[in-house]
Amino acid sequence: MPRVTVHRRAYFNAAHRLYRKDWSDEKNIEVFGKCSNPNYHGHNYELIVSLTGEIDVETGFVYDLGKLRNLIKKEIETPFDHKNFNIEVEEFKNTNPTAENIAVVIYNKLREKIPNHLDLAVKLYETPRNFVTYAGK
Amino acid sequence: MPRVTVHRRAYFNAAHRLYRKDWSDEKNIEVFGKCSNPNYHGHNYELIVSLTGEIDVETGFVYDLGKLRNLIKKEIETPFDHKNFNIEVEEFKNTNPTAENIAVVIYNKLREKIPNHLDLAVKLYETPRNFVTYAGK
Amino acid sequence: MPRVTVHRRAYFNAAHRLYRKDWSDEKNIEVFGKCSNPNYHGHNYELIVSLTGEIDVETGFVYDLGKLRNLIKKEIETPFDHKNFNIEVEEFKNTNPTAENIAVVIYNKLREKIPNHLDLAVKLYETPRNFVTYAGK
Amino acid sequence: MPRVTVHRRAYFNAAHRLYRKDWSDEKNIEVFGKCSNPNYHGHNYELIVSLTGEIDVETGFVYDLGKLRNLIKKEIETPFDHKNFNIEVEEFKNTNPTAENIAVVIYNKLREKIPNHLDLAVKLYETPRNFVTYAGK
Amino acid sequence: MPRVTVHRRAYFNAAHRLYRKDWSDEKNIEVFGKCSNPNYHGHNYELIVSLTGEIDVETGFVYDLGKLRNLIKKEIETPFDHKNFNIEVEEFKNTNPTAENIAVVIYNKLREKIPNHLDLAVKLYETPRNFVTYAGK
Amino acid sequence: MPRVTVHRRAYFNAAHRLYRKDWSDEKNIEVFGKCSNPNYHGHNYELIVSLTGEIDVETGFVYDLGKLRNLIKKEIETPFDHKNFNIEVEEFKNTNPTAENIAVVIYNKLREKIPNHLDLAVKLYETPRNFVTYAGK
Repeated sequence: MPRVTVHRRAYFNAAHRLYRKDWSDEKNIEVFGKCSNPNYHGHNYELIVSLTGEIDVETGFVYDLGKLRNLIKKEIETPFDHKNFNIEVEEFKNTNPTAENIAVVIYNKLREKIPNHLDLAVKLYETPRNFVTYAGK
Repeated sequence: MPRVTVHRRAYFNAAHRLYRKDWSDEKNIEVFGKCSNPNYHGHNYELIVSLTGEIDVETGFVYDLGKLRNLIKKEIETPFDHKNFNIEVEEFKNTNPTAENIAVVIYNKLREKIPNHLDLAVKLYETPRNFVTYAGK
Repeated sequence: MPRVTVHRRAYFNAAHRLYRKDWSDEKNIEVFGKCSNPNYHGHNYELIVSLTGEIDVETGFVYDLGKLRNLIKKEIETPFDHKNFNIEVEEFKNTNPTAENIAVVIYNKLREKIPNHLDLAVKLYETPRNFVTYAGK
Repeated sequence: MPRVTVHRRAYFNAAHRLYRKDWSDEKNIEVFGKCSNPNYHGHNYELIVSLTGEIDVETGFVYDLGKLRNLIKKEIETPFDHKNFNIEVEEFKNTNPTAENIAVVIYNKLREKIPNHLDLAVKLYETPRNFVTYAGK
Repeated sequence: MPRVTVHRRAYFNAAHRLYRKDWSDEKNIEVFGKCSNPNYHGHNYELIVSLTGEIDVETGFVYDLGKLRNLIKKEIETPFDHKNFNIEVEEFKNTNPTAENIAVVIYNKLREKIPNHLDLAVKLYETPRNFVTYAGK
Repeated sequence: MPRVTVHRRAYFNAAHRLYRKDWSDEKNIEVFGKCSNPNYHGHNYELIVSLTGEIDVETGFVYDLGKLRNLIKKEIETPFDHKNFNIEVEEFKNTNPTAENIAVVIYNKLREKIPNHLDLAVKLYETPRNFVTYAGK
């Protein structure tokens, strides 16, 4: 059967700041600029989750996109939406919540729930002009 | 010469329902949910066709995008636009018109018309949130 | 208090055909062209609902957009999404489901549920290129 | 000369929470839901500023859009971008930073700087699905 | 019958420069900046044409959008697309092709062809960030 | 460390015509159609620059997107924005400014400035419907 990639788009809004606890405020500002504002700023994050695999002969689906929607809702939207990454999301308590690191965390969380025979990739927009992609390599 | 990918975007609007003739209505509803409505629903499909090959030294083109526009119009838009996939499109009389299967049919129809030295890929949006890609593998 | 307009965007996918029962097929085709296909075609409809009124001093809201989201879901998305306008939506059993007429029906359904002190307007995209607006006048 | 409206789009990213200091946490959560998270969340705000007036015979401009870009940068983007509305923006220290209230503040700040013969309106997107407009009435 | 506005979107790509023949190059540069480059620059213009009137009882249309598409094609796209406004478009031989002036010319050209009982408005995007609207007042 | 791709979007507006000096006007028109208009036409070009590499342990960045923004501004936007490709951009004095060739020039200019351990790819939209990608192969 043909190998096709199916994509599902989702959204969440969150606050964050870029900084390292082990750096001085000066160094954080120097490296991360206004993104290091101690009072936080935030984004409308846009996420695209992509699964690649053979089309199932019975259903014509690679993976049921309704099921993928629910999985993204449970694993990503519920824990991240309207949250502060630095304070409220366990994975970022000691990790800088850059778009790169958020994408890796999203990938790792979903990878555990997606069947092994499907390849996974994630694209995360922090803004329409700044975005990242990660495929687990 | 450098290998570049050229992309052309197109649109068509169509009706479909997801179902298998050999399943009961109950099973169709169970697997395909509201997408299996026997009275059909529809979408504004958005298609991106991508061709990869070396730039032609003479023209600076990989493939004339005006020619690609006409090809997509003839092979895809004319037979699919304002049609009912299940009833009116030959390829789906016995195939479930999922986005995955539609993308494979589009790929196969274009592959016959695109010169062999060019790689082909298609991206098909069923909605802005649900879309698929296929590159013939 | 300042008068502000708040807008909420929503989506539904549906099938329809443009035609009048009291016209011949020939006349329907002549007037409505491929939109009159008896097997239906469909669209990803995009809806923007706009409410204008004074900001509430207590909340800073003109109208709670979460409440508006739920209202649109109940009154518009649930009855219209993944449906066939001509067959399954009561209001179009004897009315041609043009974008104009659908917008008027949406307006009338919401007008009954929106408090009288708020002005209402609806914008309905049938495609990104064809859309209509109606403000009840 | 014809009266034309010129529009300029801008962006800023900020954190906020919806709440009233004089309400209990319970009441804030009850009314504002997850938007009242005490750790803040954030948005990519998108702003459209619109000026209406007669075309200047000499230049063919209603208002120089480069000048408007700079004005928006100075008056809105610099004080709001990568900031926390509740903590760092004077106008919201005692005002709930709903989209409605932010739009009114933006309008008032720009109104002082835009020549009186031009009408002003602002549109503010908090997310692609939730947005507001205000024209000073 | 309800008064509804129908909108049709169209596109054309053109070159232009902002300048006045009766000004020195220095003055043109001073007022119009890089937009006055004597070698021209260009844009993907995006146009929305809006017609307001009562819904026709027979058809359910305010105005046939297919007819409007053809009218825009004939009156606007054909004379403007892939053209140089300053050199090739009669209306701009002695008029500065600012977005404002182009919108007025488009309005005037369409006004002659649109039935009198319909109100007309045009929105013209020079870029996604700079755009204008004109309704003939 | 995980290998992630970071993307940055930018814009420039320019004029061009497609033609070869060594061809007759007739041949240029025959091959390039209205794109060969001797008076030029233009576009709002949209560029996405993508860098792939390991996340830096210290910063959580693959590459500082602010630094990438400045690099694109200096190397691409400043020399290309509001310019005529055929007349004013050195690289196109003897090269046809097709989207393919512009993408290769952009890639080559950036490749010199981007550290060797990062992979580079560029996507260039000439219009929303016509675009190209190049990754240096």
